Amino acid sequence: MADPRFDILGIGNAIVDVLARTDDAFLDKHGMRKGAMTLIDATDAERIYAAMPPAQEASGGSAANTCAVAAMLGARVAYLGKIADDQLGRVFAHDIRAGGVAFDAAPLQNGAPTARCLILVTPDGQRTMNTFLGACVALGEQDVDAALVADAAVTYLEGYLFDPPAAQAAFRKAAAAARGAGRKVALSLSDPFCVNRHRAAFRALVRDDVDILFANEAEIAALYEAEFDAAAEAARADVAIAALTRSEAGSVIVAGAETAVVPAAPTAVVDTTGAGDAYAAGFLAAWARGEALAACGALGSRAAAVTIARMGARPDPAALA
Amino acid sequence: MADPRFDILGIGNAIVDVLARTDDAFLDKHGMRKGAMTLIDATDAERIYAAMPPAQEASGGSAANTCAVAAMLGARVAYLGKIADDQLGRVFAHDIRAGGVAFDAAPLQNGAPTARCLILVTPDGQRTMNTFLGACVALGEQDVDAALVADAAVTYLEGYLFDPPAAQAAFRKAAAAARGAGRKVALSLSDPFCVNRHRAAFRALVRDDVDILFANEAEIAALYEAEFDAAAEAARADVAIAALTRSEAGSVIVAGAETAVVPAAPTAVVDTTGAGDAYAAGFLAAWARGEALAACGALGSRAAAVTIARMGARPDPAALA
Repeated sequence: MADPRFDILGIGNAIVDVLARTDDAFLDKHGMRKGAMTLIDATDAERIYAAMPPAQEASGGSAANTCAVAAMLGARVAYLGKIADDQLGRVFAHDIRAGGVAFDAAPLQNGAPTARCLILVTPDGQRTMNTFLGACVALGEQDVDAALVADAAVTYLEGYLFDPPAAQAAFRKAAAAARGAGRKVALSLSDPFCVNRHRAAFRALVRDDVDILFANEAEIAALYEAEFDAAAEAARADVAIAALTRSEAGSVIVAGAETAVVPAAPTAVVDTTGAGDAYAAGFLAAWARGEALAACGALGSRAAAVTIARMGARPDPAALA
Repeated sequence: MADPRFDILGIGNAIVDVLARTDDAFLDKHGMRKGAMTLIDATDAERIYAAMPPAQEASGGSAANTCAVAAMLGARVAYLGKIADDQLGRVFAHDIRAGGVAFDAAPLQNGAPTARCLILVTPDGQRTMNTFLGACVALGEQDVDAALVADAAVTYLEGYLFDPPAAQAAFRKAAAAARGAGRKVALSLSDPFCVNRHRAAFRALVRDDVDILFANEAEIAALYEAEFDAAAEAARADVAIAALTRSEAGSVIVAGAETAVVPAAPTAVVDTTGAGDAYAAGFLAAWARGEALAACGALGSRAAAVTIARMGARPDPAALA
């Protein structure tokens, strides 16, 4: 098997984040679940945006964040996701390419606009996300280039991809192409509510197709409908590696007979947006270099810490250097 | 004369900022003058953007920044500027309205896109700006609502408005409307290179139409082609109030027989983008409440300090409270 051209190929919803600080009362008033990602339609997107304070825009998307951070850490990375041919789509494409990630997907013409995620950051640093999927609903099987998948050591899929209906087929095609080429498949569960929406499909996918699983406590509990220790053991039986994050308690990595407990890196919490994405980036960047599980987790912890120390989902590259 | 509905009406180029951190070598490579604002065309905008690192977007524009900060400080504020009917135009309109600034200008249809300013922030906190004026070149006399001008205690004009040709007429119409209604006219010189481009027009305008002048050391020196003390005396002869900023040395305010020397507020410098705009906001917000010149300067210093302590041209409202 030839050496792959990329360490990581990320596939996900290509989204521009619209970030603003609010108080908890804003979340209550708009019926939002703090810390969750909720899907909204174009009408809700207009309504919530109109009520939001002044904001800043930055490229986001869970797997795209992971790709951007992994590239900062020196990994060779490519990304697949669907933008529209509009100003926000050009912002997304610029930012991911400028970060050194290969991104060649054709933008959607004459369809929905580029996806955006309205993110409210409360004083405790928690982020509450409202996603208008826009052009992402057009991502499908036809967008998955099997040769590109075969050319990446691991294909990393975000769980959020299960929300736009056509993307599930893209997801399965990518997983099959990776396995067919002898490559690995990684999955992030993304969000406990996303797991609840698609539990059966996730359970089957994790068992049959996933080599490396990323989840936080709420997500792994939602997947196996069990408390943490039992869920971790279930993951140990299902996948080769499960990296389970526990916020300020760090992470637990289970892999066959091995268990590694990794502390979080200390930091002030400004905005937790992108913390899990950055952890996966650090983990996979170290994994691609063949490092031991504890070292993979440690780089994940450091990337997450640098990310949550400032506003937005992607850290300052200088802070990671 | 009836009480005006607004304390401040700002008129300026409506711009979305695209901010990224770079090193000094990036500026050298692209032939940029550090700290200056340079006008670029659509082709240069594409070229520079393609070379820029990943960025974040936030609403900007000099007078618009001043309006946003003045509103945070409790002033009643309106704004006039030209956006296009596109995604970045909607971002601009959302942010200024969400900050409590009245903004009712009709977006440009079927013309150039919303203006953007590519801002490179170097490790010393200096910002170097490259502005593609886009829809701003369509701002003209027809956009100035004389009744709105008459309904603001002071109309605040940014010097950058002298760059798009039609805006000079808008500028003069607004100044005439303000004077005709017994209101005040304030002007920020914006940038020494902008002053050099339009010195004769600025000199005439300052002498004939301006009540409150804002400038930094380089700008006032460029206007009068004199060193600071002589330039300050020239300004004293030309305008009722001149507020002259000197970076970390604070500001000097000259007004008739009066001179106030105001220290800068201490802060760490993260990004100087918007410092002068915020100073003008603090000054005018206090002036509108009838405060003494030293108090106006002190609020200007505080607003500037809070602005330069973080990335971007507009401060966190919570930090100003």
